[in-house]
Amino acid sequence: MSSESDFLAWIKTQQHATPLVQLPAGDDLAVLSWNAGDLLLIGVDQVLDQVHFDSAVHPPRAIGIKAMNRNISDCAAMGCLPAAALVSVALPRGSGVDYAKELYQGLREAADRFDCAIVGGDTGTWDGKLAISVTILGRSAGIKPITRDGATPGDGIYVTGPLGGSILGRHMTFSPRVHEGRQLAGSGRVTAMIDISDGLSRDLPRICSNAVLDAAVIPIHPDVELGFPVSRAPARTPLEHALHDGEDYELLFTARSTPPLGTRIGTVTAEGGLQLRSASRKLDPLVPLGWEHEL
Amino acid sequence: MSSESDFLAWIKTQQHATPLVQLPAGDDLAVLSWNAGDLLLIGVDQVLDQVHFDSAVHPPRAIGIKAMNRNISDCAAMGCLPAAALVSVALPRGSGVDYAKELYQGLREAADRFDCAIVGGDTGTWDGKLAISVTILGRSAGIKPITRDGATPGDGIYVTGPLGGSILGRHMTFSPRVHEGRQLAGSGRVTAMIDISDGLSRDLPRICSNAVLDAAVIPIHPDVELGFPVSRAPARTPLEHALHDGEDYELLFTARSTPPLGTRIGTVTAEGGLQLRSASRKLDPLVPLGWEHEL
Repeated sequence: MSSESDFLAWIKTQQHATPLVQLPAGDDLAVLSWNAGDLLLIGVDQVLDQVHFDSAVHPPRAIGIKAMNRNISDCAAMGCLPAAALVSVALPRGSGVDYAKELYQGLREAADRFDCAIVGGDTGTWDGKLAISVTILGRSAGIKPITRDGATPGDGIYVTGPLGGSILGRHMTFSPRVHEGRQLAGSGRVTAMIDISDGLSRDLPRICSNAVLDAAVIPIHPDVELGFPVSRAPARTPLEHALHDGEDYELLFTARSTPPLGTRIGTVTAEGGLQLRSASRKLDPLVPLGWEHEL
Repeated sequence: MSSESDFLAWIKTQQHATPLVQLPAGDDLAVLSWNAGDLLLIGVDQVLDQVHFDSAVHPPRAIGIKAMNRNISDCAAMGCLPAAALVSVALPRGSGVDYAKELYQGLREAADRFDCAIVGGDTGTWDGKLAISVTILGRSAGIKPITRDGATPGDGIYVTGPLGGSILGRHMTFSPRVHEGRQLAGSGRVTAMIDISDGLSRDLPRICSNAVLDAAVIPIHPDVELGFPVSRAPARTPLEHALHDGEDYELLFTARSTPPLGTRIGTVTAEGGLQLRSASRKLDPLVPLGWEHEL
């Protein structure tokens, strides 16, 4: 079995119907019956070989898991529930059906964990590298989505877990904080939320322009202490890893009163830009050092 | 201006709000308010450099137009209206912001023609070739979607326009048959429908297993008569071009009584597989020669 149509026939056997999915992948488009009471949240996020993973190192199942989980993490960041996903895969010619199946199984494994149906896809081969694009549909399911825009001065700034060092492996194996996101959004106390993909120092300005972070209380992931044989920035201190590494996929949020979970790391201010308060109480500008892609 | 964040800021200025779009691209996910009476039709389709276009030949605006129109054509094939789209782009490093903007303008130009909002996207750069994946959301808007599964023996087989020779340029510049698709789906006479992307001989078996096509009445596009200096299959006759070339993006459909538009090219039968009746009334098996991707 080596052709696209055989692979598509196999994928069809993997589909299961849900109340949401009237007609699964296989026609020109899937047909969904969207619940009238639900807002539809939707986004797309791709993973590219040698940018977000390394196909020479990571097995296809792990790559599929990461591709799906990055998108599910966006649902977590809005406080919605993953409902359905679509996947396009550009496969290097000669990858083979087994490789494509492993990729799909990884995507499916990650989606299944949150009862998210894969309702469409496009698989093509080319003389290029592996690229996977996932579109995710989330539903509000009774909880108002949390955007990036609601922070006000005085709000506390929180994270759901320790940061830094994800490049040692956690960037492939993280768990999207969907349940945490739902709990936070449902609490009525959270004013703005985002998931940390590009690094705390790059993602913080996306939810507030002025803030003071306390260096002493920023939780640093144990991975950072393991050392960085493969680090892209070997000169970073542990705190700098936590501030700038990225791909943590913890939630970063602001709240006007104590939220049901999370570690407080700072406060939204009225002015002064983004600042970092050291253990000696000295204030320094927080300069983003995370990912910035050049076009 | 050369960074991803600047490009994203520019894209935000291009968004316009609609009753559908409560929160456009720019947050983790876009927020849509889906009309309770509408089915949600959704699919994804990618275009890859040197498979679906050639970045050395085709300008970025034309590539963007094709990427979007392929997806809008899937809406036509279901008889639904394009409502919203999301786009992920993997850009070769060093493409530049102007190139990215031209791509986006092409995507936008094609979407605007059908009042389809671009509500999300992901742009990344890599040491790879240009890949564009578009997710399309269609809405039923009062007309039951037409699937691939409704053809019965005795139905007529029709196409909306002449076929063949699209490689000479039409595969980049075709017009999706959305209005025709709506008219056909709304007529209540159409039993199955698909758009011709892989070629009549490959797409026909997706809507029926048994049929007789009449060679004498299959409409051949004038492009075919222009000759094929760049053809991948120079030995094909004009009829063979119409049967096998692909990327026509005309609608292929079956109807149980005379439809409001289209050219009849054959009849669904109860058995015998797919056959082609020559001018001399001889029946031969119709063997697919269109696209089949090898994994």
